[in-house]
Amino acid sequence: MSFQAKLDLIVKNNNSLVCVGLDSDFDKLPESVKKEKYPQFSFNKAIIDATAQYVCAYKPNSAFYESQGEKGIQELKMTIDYLRNKYPGIVTILDAKRADIGSTNKGYVEFIFDYLGFDSVTLHPYLGKEALQPFLMRKDKGCIILCRTSNPGAGEFQDLVVNGKPLYQIVAEKVIHDWNSNDNCLLVVGATYPEELKKIRKISGDMTFLVPGTGAQGGDIEETMKAGLNSKNAGMIINSSRGIIFASNKEDFAEVAGKEAHKLLNAINKYR
Amino acid sequence: MSFQAKLDLIVKNNNSLVCVGLDSDFDKLPESVKKEKYPQFSFNKAIIDATAQYVCAYKPNSAFYESQGEKGIQELKMTIDYLRNKYPGIVTILDAKRADIGSTNKGYVEFIFDYLGFDSVTLHPYLGKEALQPFLMRKDKGCIILCRTSNPGAGEFQDLVVNGKPLYQIVAEKVIHDWNSNDNCLLVVGATYPEELKKIRKISGDMTFLVPGTGAQGGDIEETMKAGLNSKNAGMIINSSRGIIFASNKEDFAEVAGKEAHKLLNAINKYR
Repeated sequence: MSFQAKLDLIVKNNNSLVCVGLDSDFDKLPESVKKEKYPQFSFNKAIIDATAQYVCAYKPNSAFYESQGEKGIQELKMTIDYLRNKYPGIVTILDAKRADIGSTNKGYVEFIFDYLGFDSVTLHPYLGKEALQPFLMRKDKGCIILCRTSNPGAGEFQDLVVNGKPLYQIVAEKVIHDWNSNDNCLLVVGATYPEELKKIRKISGDMTFLVPGTGAQGGDIEETMKAGLNSKNAGMIINSSRGIIFASNKEDFAEVAGKEAHKLLNAINKYR
Repeated sequence: MSFQAKLDLIVKNNNSLVCVGLDSDFDKLPESVKKEKYPQFSFNKAIIDATAQYVCAYKPNSAFYESQGEKGIQELKMTIDYLRNKYPGIVTILDAKRADIGSTNKGYVEFIFDYLGFDSVTLHPYLGKEALQPFLMRKDKGCIILCRTSNPGAGEFQDLVVNGKPLYQIVAEKVIHDWNSNDNCLLVVGATYPEELKKIRKISGDMTFLVPGTGAQGGDIEETMKAGLNSKNAGMIINSSRGIIFASNKEDFAEVAGKEAHKLLNAINKYR
């Protein structure tokens, strides 16, 4: 099954565009969880079980696992194995923001798609399509290209004007018209920039966007929904990380995360 | 000691601008090495011992270790530990091509600079200075920003014209004039593009460039040297990976790597 087919199915089955960001920063875990043998995995497992019915996707950010060395990589692997076994219908995204030159990307492709077994990965555009071929040629996987990121300083390069258009629009156009021949590309567009989201939706047909920046980063759900939905009343994977997983840092963290995910689902579905 | 001071010292002591890229792709290791308990580390150790007198820096590319899972990360750690203990004067670069949004970069900073203990890392510019602050604020470490990469398709975005200048030049100008307040920034400029290298040298004073693309990728040493040297007859870290470490895949691989590194050193020093 293609990435998009898997996504469409879970969006329908769970009636959800919600993605929970498993940014399980060790320092922020509840004290009781920190003492466990596999703290990041234990935390993720509890969060996943409490939120799975409300989501279409999970997105661990690689940095929070790498910062723990081999142990972190092991717990990331345990997390993705748990997801694949217990919730095989839910889409998995490794937020790794990779991109190297051609031959070297093969190492990342092997690690992310084959060793870990993620359905998709986030990628930097700066080295161009030729460099990203080892990712793009994987028809079964999703390639999620950074277009307009959610951070306050995103515009430094992304707003530079090229032939009368901002660079982020050029990135979007290239991905839409040239990079997507295997129908496996998505774009990252931050919820913190609804005007840009609207603009990119206009030029990209029904392509799916990964939309970070709601919740802790301040992106507004109503604006995001009005700007970003596609013609099929979908086309967005709307991510919240800290706002869900760290909503409580007490024993009830998983229960509270479940409630927050449910709340986000309802807030989103109000505009669908 | 700052990154630049450490680099200046080893460039002087070893009279070398050579960097050996430890792109120790498991599949390409000699058969005898593949059978060892820690094949990537064993290979690196032998390569390092055979080449250390000819180099100023070592640059493992993270992808080749990540592709081996936890084991690869462990062998990357063993490699950097070996370098720091046995050759503490030689500069270490993790070619990881990272960049996330601010708070997330802290995870990468901890992993690369503190857990592994590298002197420097390669970084994507697309998210802007604000996002990269956790790296840039580390005065003791080198931040090596992708500017003009060595791959054939590098120009897709990097040559786009912004205000009459190619994007790679805008990246260089921003790094030189705005990002480098801690005097810890470098630029990646591929040896496969000597004209661009010349242009970037003209505008960047004595800033050091990491220069990949000689050897297997086809960059010419004479052209590179004429285009890239700074006013101090240095200012480049010239990397060769496959051309040195995989020059032989037989038992004599380390000896041959030593000879190739020496040859590259001589080829470079002919133009200094």
